[in-house]
Amino acid sequence: MSGVLKLGELHGSLADPLLDAMTFLNEVTGRYPEAISFAPGRPYEEFFDPADIPGHLETYLRHLREEKGLTESQVRQEVFQYGRTKGIIAPLIARALAADEGITADPEALVVTVGAQEGMLLVLRALCAGPDDVLLVSSPCYVGVTGAARLLDLTVRPVPEAGPDGGLDPDALADAVRELRAAGKRPRACYVVPDFANPSGASMDERARRRLLDVAESTGILLIEDNPYGFFGRTGPARPTLKALDGDRRNVVYLGSFAKTCFPGARVGYLLADQQVVDEDGRSGLLADELAKLKSMTTVNTSALAQAVIGGMLLAGGLRLREANEPARQFYARNMDTLLTELENAFRSVPGVSWNSPEGGFFAVVTVPFRADARALDVCARTYGVLWTPMDGFHPGGGGERQLRLSCSYLTPEQIAEGVRRLARFVTERTAGQN
Amino acid sequence: MSGVLKLGELHGSLADPLLDAMTFLNEVTGRYPEAISFAPGRPYEEFFDPADIPGHLETYLRHLREEKGLTESQVRQEVFQYGRTKGIIAPLIARALAADEGITADPEALVVTVGAQEGMLLVLRALCAGPDDVLLVSSPCYVGVTGAARLLDLTVRPVPEAGPDGGLDPDALADAVRELRAAGKRPRACYVVPDFANPSGASMDERARRRLLDVAESTGILLIEDNPYGFFGRTGPARPTLKALDGDRRNVVYLGSFAKTCFPGARVGYLLADQQVVDEDGRSGLLADELAKLKSMTTVNTSALAQAVIGGMLLAGGLRLREANEPARQFYARNMDTLLTELENAFRSVPGVSWNSPEGGFFAVVTVPFRADARALDVCARTYGVLWTPMDGFHPGGGGERQLRLSCSYLTPEQIAEGVRRLARFVTERTAGQN
Repeated sequence: MSGVLKLGELHGSLADPLLDAMTFLNEVTGRYPEAISFAPGRPYEEFFDPADIPGHLETYLRHLREEKGLTESQVRQEVFQYGRTKGIIAPLIARALAADEGITADPEALVVTVGAQEGMLLVLRALCAGPDDVLLVSSPCYVGVTGAARLLDLTVRPVPEAGPDGGLDPDALADAVRELRAAGKRPRACYVVPDFANPSGASMDERARRRLLDVAESTGILLIEDNPYGFFGRTGPARPTLKALDGDRRNVVYLGSFAKTCFPGARVGYLLADQQVVDEDGRSGLLADELAKLKSMTTVNTSALAQAVIGGMLLAGGLRLREANEPARQFYARNMDTLLTELENAFRSVPGVSWNSPEGGFFAVVTVPFRADARALDVCARTYGVLWTPMDGFHPGGGGERQLRLSCSYLTPEQIAEGVRRLARFVTERTAGQN
Repeated sequence: MSGVLKLGELHGSLADPLLDAMTFLNEVTGRYPEAISFAPGRPYEEFFDPADIPGHLETYLRHLREEKGLTESQVRQEVFQYGRTKGIIAPLIARALAADEGITADPEALVVTVGAQEGMLLVLRALCAGPDDVLLVSSPCYVGVTGAARLLDLTVRPVPEAGPDGGLDPDALADAVRELRAAGKRPRACYVVPDFANPSGASMDERARRRLLDVAESTGILLIEDNPYGFFGRTGPARPTLKALDGDRRNVVYLGSFAKTCFPGARVGYLLADQQVVDEDGRSGLLADELAKLKSMTTVNTSALAQAVIGGMLLAGGLRLREANEPARQFYARNMDTLLTELENAFRSVPGVSWNSPEGGFFAVVTVPFRADARALDVCARTYGVLWTPMDGFHPGGGGERQLRLSCSYLTPEQIAEGVRRLARFVTERTAGQN
C-alpha cells in the first residue's frame, strides 16, 4: 500500500518517549486554553509591538548606508540575498557581548544561528564523531539538548546538579569524565546553563563556576554554556558568565539567544566558538568556521531579514541589551517574587511539599508527595484549571517523578497568585487521595 | 593545551573533500570580485526593494486582523512569540500550491521550514534510521542533499540522469533499488529535481515523470521532489510536478522554497508530507507531524517574522505566485536564451566542446576537453576574469571532471555575452596548452 509508512521503520528518535511526551504536553496545553498555564517558558509579550518592526529594520538599513557606507544595491544584497553562512550582524553582536557580559569576541568566531537550538545541533554534530563519543549534560536538562543528541544518535551522560538551587556540580563532572574514560569512552563536552537553568531554576555561584572551568581545563572537556536567561536576575548584580571568567583559555563554547531579550519570533541566536581547529598538516582555523560548514547543510543562512530587525534593535539600544531589558528584568523578578511568596503562603504547612528559590529567570521546581506525571497534569488541568510541566522528561537518566516545573514568565502577578491557589487545591486533594 | 581541537577528532563530514571544495569555491569567488561570475545560483536581485517589506508585513497583519478576526494581542502573539512548529502560513501556502501547481494540500500536511535545506534534512533524518538504509539521489546532484546526508552519516547511492537534457532515468532507479535490495540494503527514498535541475539544468518529460511515479509505486520508494526553479521555464507551458501527477497515491514528499519566487533573505521554504505513519498499535498520523517533531530539535520554529513577510507577499499576489513571477520568468528565459546563443557563437566550431540546452531555470553545463577543476577555475578567474563551478563536486559517485556549470540567473544579458567571450578564450587557450 503506497503512502503508508511504519513508525518503527523511521528514525528511532520519533518513537522516543521524550518526543511523545513533548507532543502530549503540547496537546494538553492546547486542550485547556482557559487554564492558567505555568507550562510554557515564553517571554511576556506585552513588551513587543508589531508597529516597531519597520523602525528597527530602517535603523539597520540606515546603519548599512551611513555607517558602513553601502550603496543601495549592496543594501539590497545584504537583506534580500543568500548571505554569509556565519551571518551578517556578528560585529554588532560582538559589541553587545563586550558591553553586556565583558566577553571579548572576535566577530569571526561568531555564527548567527536559527535560535540557540541550531547552535546546539551544530556544536553537538561537530564534537561527537563516533559511537564512543559522549555528551555530558547537567541533569535535569533542557530537552532541546537531549533531543538534538537523539536526532544525531549521540550518547548522553547526565551529571547531577548540586541540590535544588546549586546548578551543575563540577566534581560530579570530574567523576563522570573519569568513569567514562575508564570505560573506554570519549567524553567530549558538557552542556550547562549556569544562570537560572531550564528547568531547575538553579544557578552556579562564582566559586562553582571557577571550579567547573578548572575541571574543563584539566580534563580537556569543552563546556557548552547556554545563557538564555542571564539578564533576568531577581536580586543582586549578575554573575560573570563562564565564557567571561574563562578569559583566553577557550574552554567554553557560548550559546546566545535573542528570544528572551528581543523576541522569539525572529528566531535569531548565535554561538561563539573561538577554539582553534588544527588539521593533519598543522593548518589551523576557528571552530566557528567548521560549525558554519555544518550550518550550510542545516539551514544555509539565518534569515537576513530577521537578523536585520535584531540588528536594528541592538543599534537602538546603543549596542547593549542589558539596559534595554531592565523593564523586563523587573517584571520577571516581580513575578518570581510573587510565585515564591504564593508558594510559601499555600504550602508552608503542607507536609511533603517543598520548592526551590531561584535567584532569577523563568522557572521554579515544586516537589510533591505523588507522581507528577502527564496523567496528573491532565487531571489538574481539567478539574483545577492550572497547567505545569512534569519534571521527569527533563531527567535523561531518570528522576524528577515527583516534581513539577512552574514557569512564571508568561503570566501577570494576579494570574500567578490565582494559579498557585488552584495548584494548592489540586496538590492537597491529590495527596489526600481525593482526585 | 586548551582551546585546540584536532580536525580528525571532529565529525567526519568536516574533513570531507565535498565541504572543502565548497569552501575553496567560496574563497575563489571572493578573491576575484571583479570577475564575471557564472558561479552562484542566486536570483537576480533588482526585483527586490527593501522599502516593500513593511508593506508586506502590514498586508499579513491586516489579514490576521480582518480576515482571521484576531485581536491585537493575538496578532502580537502570532508574529513575536514561539509559534506552532509546523508554521503559521501553511493555509496560505496550500492555496498558492493549488493555484500555481494544481496540488491539493491539506495545510496540516505542510511544515514551514528554514528554506528547503532544512526540509531535506528533516526528511532524510526521518526516513533513514539505520546503517542499511540508503538514500538514492539523481546524479549529478545538488550538494545540499549529499551534504545533509553526510551530516547524518547516511549512505548515498547515485542514480544517473538520462543524457545531458533528460533528467533522472526512472529505469536506472528501478535497477538501483533492485541491486540494493539484493545486497541486503534498504533503499528508502530518491531525491529528484524534475524541472531545470541544479546543477545539470536537465528536465524530465511527462512520460518519464509518469514512469518514475510507477517505479516509486511498485518499489515502495518515496520520491523527494525539490522544485526551486519550476516557475522559470524558457519555452512552452509548465510540466506538472510529480506531486500533482501522483494524485492521492502519496509517493511524493514535495519540497518548496520561496528563495527564488520571493527572496532568499527570508529563508522560508516548506515541505508537503501527506503520507500516513502507522505505529505498532495501528494509530496513524501524518508524516508532516513526525517531521515537525524533528524540527523542534533543529530550529524549533521558522522565523514568524519572515513567514509574515512571505505571507504578505502571497496575499499581495492573490495567493498565486506564478503570475507574480512572470517578469522574473521572462528575465531568466532571456538570460538562458542569451547564454545558449553566445555558447553557439563561441564554441560552434571548437572541437571537443559541447553543452546542453536547458528548457529553463538557472543552469547549463558545458563539456570541455580538459580537467575543469578548482585549479583550472583559479587560472580562469585570475587571467580571464570569469568564474564558473566545476561539476565534479556534484557527482557523489565520481564523474563530471571535464564539465563546468554556468549559472545565468545573476547577470545581465550583456554580462553573459562578455562572460562567454572570456570563457571561450580560456577554453581555447587551455585546449591548446597555452595557460
